[in-house]
Amino acid sequence: MALIVEKYGGTSVGDVERINHVADKVATSRESGNDMVVVVSAMSGETNRLLELAREINCEAPARELDVLLSTGEQVTIALLSMALHRRGFDARSYTGGQVHIRTDSVHGRARILDIEDARVRNDLANGRVVVVAGFQGVDEDRNITTLGRGGSDTTAVAMAAALNADECRIYTDVDGVYTADPRIVPEARRLDRITDEEMLELASLGSKILQTRSVEFAGKYRVPLRVLSSFEESPGTLITYEEPSMEQPMISGIAYNKDEAKLTIRGIPDEPGIAYRILGPISEAHVNVDMIVQNVGADGTTDLTFTVHRNDYEKSLDILKKTAVELKARDVGGDNNIAKISVVGVGMRSHAGIATTMFQALANEGINIQMISTSEIKISVVVEDKYLELGVRTLHKAFGLENSDES
Amino acid sequence: MALIVEKYGGTSVGDVERINHVADKVATSRESGNDMVVVVSAMSGETNRLLELAREINCEAPARELDVLLSTGEQVTIALLSMALHRRGFDARSYTGGQVHIRTDSVHGRARILDIEDARVRNDLANGRVVVVAGFQGVDEDRNITTLGRGGSDTTAVAMAAALNADECRIYTDVDGVYTADPRIVPEARRLDRITDEEMLELASLGSKILQTRSVEFAGKYRVPLRVLSSFEESPGTLITYEEPSMEQPMISGIAYNKDEAKLTIRGIPDEPGIAYRILGPISEAHVNVDMIVQNVGADGTTDLTFTVHRNDYEKSLDILKKTAVELKARDVGGDNNIAKISVVGVGMRSHAGIATTMFQALANEGINIQMISTSEIKISVVVEDKYLELGVRTLHKAFGLENSDES
Repeated sequence: MALIVEKYGGTSVGDVERINHVADKVATSRESGNDMVVVVSAMSGETNRLLELAREINCEAPARELDVLLSTGEQVTIALLSMALHRRGFDARSYTGGQVHIRTDSVHGRARILDIEDARVRNDLANGRVVVVAGFQGVDEDRNITTLGRGGSDTTAVAMAAALNADECRIYTDVDGVYTADPRIVPEARRLDRITDEEMLELASLGSKILQTRSVEFAGKYRVPLRVLSSFEESPGTLITYEEPSMEQPMISGIAYNKDEAKLTIRGIPDEPGIAYRILGPISEAHVNVDMIVQNVGADGTTDLTFTVHRNDYEKSLDILKKTAVELKARDVGGDNNIAKISVVGVGMRSHAGIATTMFQALANEGINIQMISTSEIKISVVVEDKYLELGVRTLHKAFGLENSDES
Repeated sequence: MALIVEKYGGTSVGDVERINHVADKVATSRESGNDMVVVVSAMSGETNRLLELAREINCEAPARELDVLLSTGEQVTIALLSMALHRRGFDARSYTGGQVHIRTDSVHGRARILDIEDARVRNDLANGRVVVVAGFQGVDEDRNITTLGRGGSDTTAVAMAAALNADECRIYTDVDGVYTADPRIVPEARRLDRITDEEMLELASLGSKILQTRSVEFAGKYRVPLRVLSSFEESPGTLITYEEPSMEQPMISGIAYNKDEAKLTIRGIPDEPGIAYRILGPISEAHVNVDMIVQNVGADGTTDLTFTVHRNDYEKSLDILKKTAVELKARDVGGDNNIAKISVVGVGMRSHAGIATTMFQALANEGINIQMISTSEIKISVVVEDKYLELGVRTLHKAFGLENSDES
């Protein structure tokens, strides 16, 4: 008998019909002999309805009170799902974050989980009950209600699974797993049966937003077997693992992309210590996140620095950079917001040479010019003109044979 | 500096505009130097919306889960009111029943308050904060969420006032106090400045439904100074006191009525011990509440018994009574659902003779026939044909000079 934690997001519990559907799925898991803990989000639309009420009353509402307000969303869902399970003959008990004692720090709106008291849940499971837990919420030391921020229900599920040493944590979403590339761009893209947590993090942060990054980090820390699957289709989904790559591990797991970035370049600046800080400091102070940073040494004792920001921050960043250029007596400043970033991700990359060569050659064969390159241990990213995005992704998917890989 | 507990019901916090209005009223009380604790209900309509969701999912939803669901209603209101107070520059903190630790028994849906931990609230008040508490809810020993039943927010307010030894508990409603009679029937009816808790109980249970009976009992037990006043008009309302009546106490405080009852009579039954039980037992088993009961000794060793029930239970009760009549070999069974009950209430009645005489004579002068009479220490009730309701109430209001009384 396995202990399974299942998590259903807002869309999966969006109305009475869908809550009944989730109850059916939980019932099936329970009837197959598993101990079941179910974590749910607020019904889709409910959080926005509550935020709108708050905004009408106080557009600068204190974070503590926003948490009291928003946490009602999941509380409604746990009660309704529990009722639906009772209707199917299961003894179910619902718990708020405070009741199951998900203790967090006191940072309202984006609290972090510190620990969970598991005694009560274990007692319910031992008595054959299905336990239904409100995601996204907890209480601080003084029992003030806190919330974990949007998407925090994933983290709740992983934390419950870690605290209970669950056999598997299943995150039900509106996609049926992690793919080798976006199927809208690459029709031959294949669902991965397995992926490592590091690859998942790279893929998630690169735009394949399926799981909240924090929940994957959390799962990795506690080695929680995490599975992403669809609440609407029958499919085994994708299992996130923490194993070292084996010899048979494919070199590349998938191709990610991001078309929300813009590129800025400052040229002819003094090549001296602290120069990167003097350029990027003012950008950061304006609360602009910088993604890729590339610096090359020039020939004449000067250097060039190029970085990317979110496309929405492009104009603002360009203005700041122009001021910095005057101060540093830079030669010139340039920018481009018609770019796209394409990345190949895979833990196998660590032990295999030649990935970069294959990547650059494949793109060159299609006449795609590479404007920037950035690498990490398990990822190579390139920036290209944005009109080449789809062609680039398809080309790389094929170049690494992702449509054929056979995974164990 | 006084400590005041104020309670606002669902209509008073029914939308954003009204919540802002309540915040203005609380702000005024606070600015006049009072320590403030505010108890609120769910926004009007919210409880029914939640019940409808539950009904769609499970029409026999377990009471524990209904409480988890319904308690979100007040939680939304406390957060919004707290935000509205912050907007006005007040440091406010909201608490659910569980957080302020209103400990109840485990009877979900109609739990009774056992005790309240006041340390946290006192600490907030000492720091100049306005404390906003969710009415209607608590937690049992195992921190399961409980609700006190409809109207339970009044009880929460009184219990908070008792626990904090508050100087006054103000219940804001849609009427501006307790009247000598229903102003819709008696235009000269006068708002009472003061009324005793016993009188309030008799008036409330007789149809002037302003406060939940339980909350008045609770207030009486702990001698909480309780004031009923309007959240829509400026008026001092009516203060409920626990003093013994003074010499100047008017004999009669008010005239109450109830036109929701029906009368049933069984005649010619054996006048022997246990007969009332054999007649009323089956009625009670059918979950019908009996109000007035009158039994007279007949001349021939038999007796008659008449009682009243809610008009909605008339047909059901009559069917049951007919079966009982066969078993008891009663002479006959009769009923009438065109009746009204009129009562005069007043603690002064205890020390004054002649109240009944004045009452019966006044009704006789108007040709109103009395069908039943029932008395308590501070109340005389009569049943009359329902077409005489308004005339009867006006006649008695005048007969006892209620339009002229001058209260201190």
